[in-house]
Formats: sequence, C-alpha cells, structure tokens
Amino acid sequence: MGRITVRRPVLRITSDGSRQRPDTLAAEEPLEIRVDSRPLSVTMRTPGHDVELAHGFLLTESVITTHADVRTARYCDSPGPDGRNTYNVLDVQLAPGVAPPDASVERNFYTTSSCGVCGKAALDAVRLRTRHPPAHDPLTVTPELLTDIPDRLREAQRVFSSTGGLHAAGLFDSTGALLAVREDVGRHNAVDKVLGWALLEGRVPLAGCVLMVSGRASFELVQKAAMAGIPLLAAVSAPSSLAVELAEEQGMTLVGFLRGPSMNVYTGAERIHLQRPTEHTTSTG
Amino acid sequence: MGRITVRRPVLRITSDGSRQRPDTLAAEEPLEIRVDSRPLSVTMRTPGHDVELAHGFLLTESVITTHADVRTARYCDSPGPDGRNTYNVLDVQLAPGVAPPDASVERNFYTTSSCGVCGKAALDAVRLRTRHPPAHDPLTVTPELLTDIPDRLREAQRVFSSTGGLHAAGLFDSTGALLAVREDVGRHNAVDKVLGWALLEGRVPLAGCVLMVSGRASFELVQKAAMAGIPLLAAVSAPSSLAVELAEEQGMTLVGFLRGPSMNVYTGAERIHLQRPTEHTTSTG
Repeated sequence: MGRITVRRPVLRITSDGSRQRPDTLAAEEPLEIRVDSRPLSVTMRTPGHDVELAHGFLLTESVITTHADVRTARYCDSPGPDGRNTYNVLDVQLAPGVAPPDASVERNFYTTSSCGVCGKAALDAVRLRTRHPPAHDPLTVTPELLTDIPDRLREAQRVFSSTGGLHAAGLFDSTGALLAVREDVGRHNAVDKVLGWALLEGRVPLAGCVLMVSGRASFELVQKAAMAGIPLLAAVSAPSSLAVELAEEQGMTLVGFLRGPSMNVYTGAERIHLQRPTEHTTSTG
Repeated sequence: MGRITVRRPVLRITSDGSRQRPDTLAAEEPLEIRVDSRPLSVTMRTPGHDVELAHGFLLTESVITTHADVRTARYCDSPGPDGRNTYNVLDVQLAPGVAPPDASVERNFYTTSSCGVCGKAALDAVRLRTRHPPAHDPLTVTPELLTDIPDRLREAQRVFSSTGGLHAAGLFDSTGALLAVREDVGRHNAVDKVLGWALLEGRVPLAGCVLMVSGRASFELVQKAAMAGIPLLAAVSAPSSLAVELAEEQGMTLVGFLRGPSMNVYTGAERIHLQRPTEHTTSTG
C-alpha cells in the first residue's frame, strides 16, 4: 500500500566521472482485477488508488455504468513470499442484476463487429458500447485555458519530478480547475484511476470536462475518454491515426502537442474559441 | 501494408494565431495473432514487420525458441468494410512437436508461480521460462559506446521525426554497430519486432548485444530482453522498480536516463568499463 516510489542505489555516470548514489524509482506491481471472484485482467500498475483503477477499468470496458453497479470492491487475501498480503488482488462484486463481463474482455471487444479485424471494427465496437457519446457536449474553451493546463498538471504531480518515470492523467472542469490527478507507470492506468475517481464521485458522464494526459494519445485513451463522456482530450505528444479517427467519429475534441503556447487540434475544433480567424494553407509548415 | 503514416488536416494554434495545415500521424491498427488458426492475442500496432512482431511476441511469451519452431506465418483473409484484406490477422503454424500456447498467455504468466500475485511471482515466472539467461554474458562496453547509441537510433528512425508519435527499439552489437531498428506506436511492439527480426536471422540468443528503447524501461521490456538473452538494456527515460528487480535477478545490465554524456546504471555495472574509479556517496545528488 502506498508503495508509489522505491529507493535503490544507482551508478550515475557523467562526463565528469561516476559515483554511487541513491535513486528514487516509480513502483510497479501486478494488479489482478476479479469480478464476482473470477479473474478478469492483470495489469502492471503503480500501487495506490486500486479501487479507482478497478472502477475506471470496468467503466471503460462497459461492464459498469454507475457507482451503484458495484456492491463491494475489496482486496483479496493474497500472501506474498513473506506471508503478508501483497494487496495485488482486488475483487469487485457487482450489484444484483448487473451482467458479469465475458471471460475475455479483449476478445469481446473485437467480436462485437461483424467485419474483419480492422480500424473500422475497433471504431464500431466503441460506438456500440458508449452510453455517453460526447458529440453534443456544448463545451467551449479558449486556447489560453488549454495552454495553462500542462503547468497545472505538473504542479499537481507529486511523484513525477522525483522519478521521471510516471505517466499522469488530469481531469479539469470547463473553467480549467483541476478536479483530480493520478500517476502510474501505465498511461491507461492513470486514466482509469481518474475515471474511477469520477465514477465513485457520481460525476460520470463527465460532460463539460477536459482530460489531459502526459505522452501520446492512443486509440485506447480516446476510447476510455469516450466511455466516460468526456468532450475534450488533450495530450502532450502526438495522437495515432486511429485515435484521431475515433475522436472524430465520437464528436470529441482531440488536442495534441499541447506544449508552451501552442497545440494541434485534430478534431472538434469548434470547441476551441479563437479570437482571430484561421488562415488556410495546404502546404506543410 | 506499409501504412506507417497517415496524412490528416490539423488546426495548428500558436501565440501568433491559427492555421489549417496537413499533418502526418503514426498509423495504428489492431493485429490479431493466431497460432495454429486459434486467436491468441490482439495488439494495437503500427502496420509493417508483422511477421517479425509475431515471432518476437511468441519468443518472449516462451511459445517458440528458434525460427525452426515456426512452419509458416501468413496473413489470413480478413476483409474490411470495403471488401479488401485488412492484413490485420496473422496466423502462425507451429512446426510438428512444438506445444501450442495456453489459451491465455496472461493468465499462464501468473499461474506458473505458486504464491500470490506480486512482484516476486512475476520475477519467478520469468526465471522459470528464460532459456537464455544473460547472467554470464561477458560483454563489456565503455560509457562512450553507450552515449553514442541514442544518436545512432535517432538517425535510423525514419518515421519519428515526421510524426513525433512512435516508439523505437534498436539492437546494437558489442562494437555499437546498429543491427536493426523498428518503430511502433507501442513500445512493446517495437521490441517484439526487433527480437522477431533477430530470431528470423538465427541470432537468438542475442549474446553480446545491446537493446536500446525510447521512453521508459518497464518490467515487460526487461522480460522481453531476458527471454532473448540480451545482456544490456538501455532506455532514454526511467526504469520502474520491478524492471530493476528483474534485471538484477537475471544478471542483466540496466541503464536508464541515457541522454547526452550521462546515464544511470541500475544493475550489472560490471559490464560498464570505467576509466576512473567511482566515487561513493550516500547523499542524493
């Protein structure tokens, strides 16, 4: 519990020579999520906020929709080599009437579409499962609100500066106020923890909210945002092609390369309130 | 095939205003890997080098050991919405006598250990499965050889500079010469592609070799390097706690924060040939 960082000795080599010193690492441990006592998924995560992680995972995998769909979530007795509980197995008991997930979430994901395994199939699967499509969310934000967000996220990140090894996900309201931030060795886990927090707070669907992630925007992250009804996803780095396609299909605003005073808006630019008209050019700049 | 990048329009916003322009994105598509016609795994990957990806995945999941364990690897007929093959389903037929994998690779990974789900169990599972432990590999390198490697990797990366959205993995020999480089939206896929290349070239176990990855070093990447017998793994960014524990247990040299003239050596420092003696200090610097 609370093993977010671990201290280890390290040999630091620079052009001035080398020296031994202690270093702080981001903790990584497996978490097995069980539903109604049956193993569903194992993820390598940074320990902490595991109940939120499980809720966010089950929300974005379409197993639950609200907090009320879960009866209890508690650690199983899972002793490690020293006989003490590892707190690495979490069992979620669903409320009566909530259908348990198929044995393989991954397989289920792709068999919801009738065509072959392709990007279209992946997009279809998300469309069929999203209960909170963000397409008609009336959120608008200024570029300045967005460019302030990375700094706010960094300020709120407790662990990153000490280890350099964690991804962050931050949830912001339409005024740019930070609602929640979570860190993890896995980007998808950081997002699941934030979304699980929101679910437990009764805030899903997250209408009018902005989700910011460190690093890249993959298909998986857009999928998770769509499942929670988030109208705007921003990333520090690049999106993938399928991330952009899914954001467009879901009517979500997708912002990438949000750094300093600049950003790229890939989809849903109508939510960005510009002071000056946009130039149009067909050359690459 | 060859859909490594995709062109899309983007709205670029800077402090000078905004303009529409075309942008290049890293392609992302699902790949289903089948073994003896049965679905085993779906990964979101950048198309290209899929046969290498499948070989590397099966090597690091302990299904195959050499090229000879695979009889054929070919794309299935998997039509997309336009009726054309998506090339997103690859079937690997194993050679006679090679045992097929369990239905769930992930589950299998954890049930090889008798104790609860914990870091120790994960370490045990890798130890039991590695056929090429790198512990006694006599490789030694100078710090200068290592500090040159990120530049060589960047020079060889064709796509990263155009999209900013791809991870890279590069394999180097003991003189620092580049053997292979692969890029992918998923870091684990980039590593699987490089290791699959090596397997197909008859180079596994990769004694005396250095694997370099962009980004962080997770448990999963150390595991993959260990399965291929690689004695030295270097990363641009931080390792996780479990990555360091596994590298130590496997006798692998793990280098992080390899940037400019500096690096952190977390394990196996005896493989780094230093000109000057190391200072010892217990303070954090």
